[in-house]
Amino acid sequence: MKNEKAILLISCLDKGGIVAEISHFISTYNGNIIHSDQHNDDASNTFFMRIEWNLSGFTIPKDKISQAFEAIAIKFDMKWELKFSSERTKMAIFVSKYDHCLYELLLRNRAGELDADIVQIISNHEDARPIADYFGVPYEVFKITKDTKLDQEQKEIELLESRETDLVVLARYMQVLSPEFEARFRNRIINIHHSFLPAFIGAKPYHQAYTRGVKIIGATCHYVTQELDQGPIIEQDVTRISHRDTVEDLVAKGKNLEKLVLTQGVKLHLEHKVHVYGNKTVVFD
Amino acid sequence: MKNEKAILLISCLDKGGIVAEISHFISTYNGNIIHSDQHNDDASNTFFMRIEWNLSGFTIPKDKISQAFEAIAIKFDMKWELKFSSERTKMAIFVSKYDHCLYELLLRNRAGELDADIVQIISNHEDARPIADYFGVPYEVFKITKDTKLDQEQKEIELLESRETDLVVLARYMQVLSPEFEARFRNRIINIHHSFLPAFIGAKPYHQAYTRGVKIIGATCHYVTQELDQGPIIEQDVTRISHRDTVEDLVAKGKNLEKLVLTQGVKLHLEHKVHVYGNKTVVFD
Amino acid sequence: MKNEKAILLISCLDKGGIVAEISHFISTYNGNIIHSDQHNDDASNTFFMRIEWNLSGFTIPKDKISQAFEAIAIKFDMKWELKFSSERTKMAIFVSKYDHCLYELLLRNRAGELDADIVQIISNHEDARPIADYFGVPYEVFKITKDTKLDQEQKEIELLESRETDLVVLARYMQVLSPEFEARFRNRIINIHHSFLPAFIGAKPYHQAYTRGVKIIGATCHYVTQELDQGPIIEQDVTRISHRDTVEDLVAKGKNLEKLVLTQGVKLHLEHKVHVYGNKTVVFD
Amino acid sequence: MKNEKAILLISCLDKGGIVAEISHFISTYNGNIIHSDQHNDDASNTFFMRIEWNLSGFTIPKDKISQAFEAIAIKFDMKWELKFSSERTKMAIFVSKYDHCLYELLLRNRAGELDADIVQIISNHEDARPIADYFGVPYEVFKITKDTKLDQEQKEIELLESRETDLVVLARYMQVLSPEFEARFRNRIINIHHSFLPAFIGAKPYHQAYTRGVKIIGATCHYVTQELDQGPIIEQDVTRISHRDTVEDLVAKGKNLEKLVLTQGVKLHLEHKVHVYGNKTVVFD
Repeated sequence: MKNEKAILLISCLDKGGIVAEISHFISTYNGNIIHSDQHNDDASNTFFMRIEWNLSGFTIPKDKISQAFEAIAIKFDMKWELKFSSERTKMAIFVSKYDHCLYELLLRNRAGELDADIVQIISNHEDARPIADYFGVPYEVFKITKDTKLDQEQKEIELLESRETDLVVLARYMQVLSPEFEARFRNRIINIHHSFLPAFIGAKPYHQAYTRGVKIIGATCHYVTQELDQGPIIEQDVTRISHRDTVEDLVAKGKNLEKLVLTQGVKLHLEHKVHVYGNKTVVFD
Repeated sequence: MKNEKAILLISCLDKGGIVAEISHFISTYNGNIIHSDQHNDDASNTFFMRIEWNLSGFTIPKDKISQAFEAIAIKFDMKWELKFSSERTKMAIFVSKYDHCLYELLLRNRAGELDADIVQIISNHEDARPIADYFGVPYEVFKITKDTKLDQEQKEIELLESRETDLVVLARYMQVLSPEFEARFRNRIINIHHSFLPAFIGAKPYHQAYTRGVKIIGATCHYVTQELDQGPIIEQDVTRISHRDTVEDLVAKGKNLEKLVLTQGVKLHLEHKVHVYGNKTVVFD
Repeated sequence: MKNEKAILLISCLDKGGIVAEISHFISTYNGNIIHSDQHNDDASNTFFMRIEWNLSGFTIPKDKISQAFEAIAIKFDMKWELKFSSERTKMAIFVSKYDHCLYELLLRNRAGELDADIVQIISNHEDARPIADYFGVPYEVFKITKDTKLDQEQKEIELLESRETDLVVLARYMQVLSPEFEARFRNRIINIHHSFLPAFIGAKPYHQAYTRGVKIIGATCHYVTQELDQGPIIEQDVTRISHRDTVEDLVAKGKNLEKLVLTQGVKLHLEHKVHVYGNKTVVFD
Repeated sequence: MKNEKAILLISCLDKGGIVAEISHFISTYNGNIIHSDQHNDDASNTFFMRIEWNLSGFTIPKDKISQAFEAIAIKFDMKWELKFSSERTKMAIFVSKYDHCLYELLLRNRAGELDADIVQIISNHEDARPIADYFGVPYEVFKITKDTKLDQEQKEIELLESRETDLVVLARYMQVLSPEFEARFRNRIINIHHSFLPAFIGAKPYHQAYTRGVKIIGATCHYVTQELDQGPIIEQDVTRISHRDTVEDLVAKGKNLEKLVLTQGVKLHLEHKVHVYGNKTVVFD
């Protein structure tokens, strides 16, 4: 259990004494807090916390911590999750033909920057198979038509479950997922949209941006919900353009944004730094 | 005429030989080009140019240049304007209660950063009068109600005309101008909208941004057209926010953006660096 | 004491149980934590905390809180400060001829964005007196020559002390303060340097930037120490330039950076969000 | 010669009539200008131009254009280069162990974003060989010690010459090149330095940045000259950091900057948009 860390994610109605109880719990059992972040959302009177402590020396065995913490959780009617740094998230990547986001995720995972095991790549095209082979990740193609969509998604879900997938990342996957699929992985599907949402929702955002004549373009990493491009935003970034840029230039400049913004959003999720509440996020970065 | 410069703004259908003719015209009469920018819009096959040259030594008298250039203009069926650096734009500012954009314009004008004479401040409130007094600019209040709007605007137009106003700047002026007013100053009314357009059109964009949970907010400087917040964009900028920011924080952070973005857009206009075409701009900065 | 808040700034050697003790202290006396930030600097094994709680309902009287907290402070050998939201910092501004930073501070203070009383403006020139008059702030000129410097600074210190000055802000003040002056207001003098430190230390940074041919310029807000431009950095920001920009353009673009970066640094200090340790800062924003 | 374009890069002492002569030359032979950029450096009274025109319909054969243009070049004592869009630059990449910049260049080249043929990868380590194999680029290792450096560089130069290398890109290559090597490829060696130059010259810039406590880090793409990290800057960019970031975090965040800034600088060079003059650049982007 050397260097092993526990991470507690909590949200509940805000009232006095929460921090005192939690920090007392950790210090009583000899845990040393490494990071602690909290946020009080005034509008909804909600308290959010992320607290990370070292398990080396902690006197409750790892598999008993949840049980030990439960009394506090019940007292404050908390929504909570307990994570351990040694338990790597199992991540699947969906991709179509653009491969820049896929490469970015695979390369940065291999460089040790993402705490994930990439267990499966799924596509509606054959194109990215050589990439999967190069990185040694299983690759499966599910062709999608209007008629086959639900059937194919069902097979995708079975495959994802067989891989014990925790997180689905849509790395410029050009199909809209069904509500059934979304419900199966609620708050665990991360998408990259190639605009500064809520500007330019839907198809061909770079064409929309070009037509509107904006001076800045963006990319948005968000959780997928039932409404297209309306899910909770994790991360956004932008870059400057000018009248000299053609649509093709916007696409090329945008690709650099997309890959960085998606990977940053995934990284934050993997480090258990994102709370979803309503249609928004609290991101402790 | 020492240090006097001429600036020619041109747009026309793109075809061969335009640059050759214009630069030949200038060099024939002994003008020295200081800046020259051009752009070819492929989608509409339009050629844009801004060319600036020194009149010291130029052998055509200043008041005959237009006449001399006309043959070229006709040959290529150009839309064109000839400006002189010594002729300062007469600018009027409209303001309501927020005064940060007003101050920014007045201070940077006084610091010599804007080539304009600020000839009039108009408001629907008394609040900014002491500011106008401090800077020695005439201040007039026109209260606006639904019933009086057109009448009041008519008086505003008369006042603006009496001041020979070239440019109207809406510095967080909280009234929508009538189509009649807009038509009177087409492409010569600059507004600041406190969002990253086209996101968050209309009222209370910071509240909209807060509700949507975006991670970046913006400001947009644009020409006013008949459709609200849809005019050609001159300049935009953004700043990063987080879940910690309340609506009030967004308002405060946004004010810094608004004043800089508006002033930058106005500065570009005053330096004759903006072409409007359709609903877009070419900005030679 | 309605809406009154207490803010505790703490640093000490990191060990287990600190957060538990502090949060227990606050909750025992019925305080409700509004914000809490902590940081553990691994290199120096130092723990930093900023904790803010509502005094409405807190059962220790305001003037007894320090005394009550002292036992915990001693136990962990803390460096600590207790601040109250109702106690506004008394701020003096030093300025020379450039007035853009001075205006920004005065305007944003008047707009309620800075929790300070501006009690004095000091300059080595007469130029800014009308600004001080307009904002109703006392203005005093102390001419500085090599020979008179220490004497004049002594008079400045007396004036500042008579105003009970807590914070000195150098708003493009073009004199280097003596070590004696610095020692008198250690960690309470904030300067704006017009470069991206540590690039371009010393005089004429925009000229240096122009000569080096950088593509981005910056501004740095820092605490003044005995070594020129070497003090702990609070805030920095940058803007893009190109080969088209002359030194004068850099100066103009830089002014926008300087005023925003300085004001942001001052704001963070006024909200007691900055810890200085060694030559660095922890900024809880 | 369909879609073939000619690009002329010119610099000379500024005097009247240059643009007129060049544009007249192009239009006389029925060339259509696509892009034209010029810049006048007042300090050195130097005129810079980049002009790009379509060869479809141009009445001088491609291999006679240089000869035809020479009279103008001599008249104005120009330094000039004539490039053709069909002639792809032959680029070699030097790399050590960090592979993020190497991957970025290879991937974006394969995506068609860089107009180059990558003809050789050279390293002082074996590590990147599988990457070279995957992309089908020759890979050669030259171990460098103090004693063998000049000999090994000589062999590198021979290999580069056998590949007709036009451009050498140092993609986090951790060896300093000798003056002899630099002289052989003057203004044709592009390096990425992992700091915002001139801050943090030399070794371990992220450690230096961490120690100084800056709030922003950067990366700089520049031509290599005889003085370490002093060459003409092509492109820079920055990203925000905080007290929470360890040196390892700076390294990870910096890697994203490095790969984008290096590739952008290389792209500008490949598109013949960079003029070097003295120790600075004019970049027409």
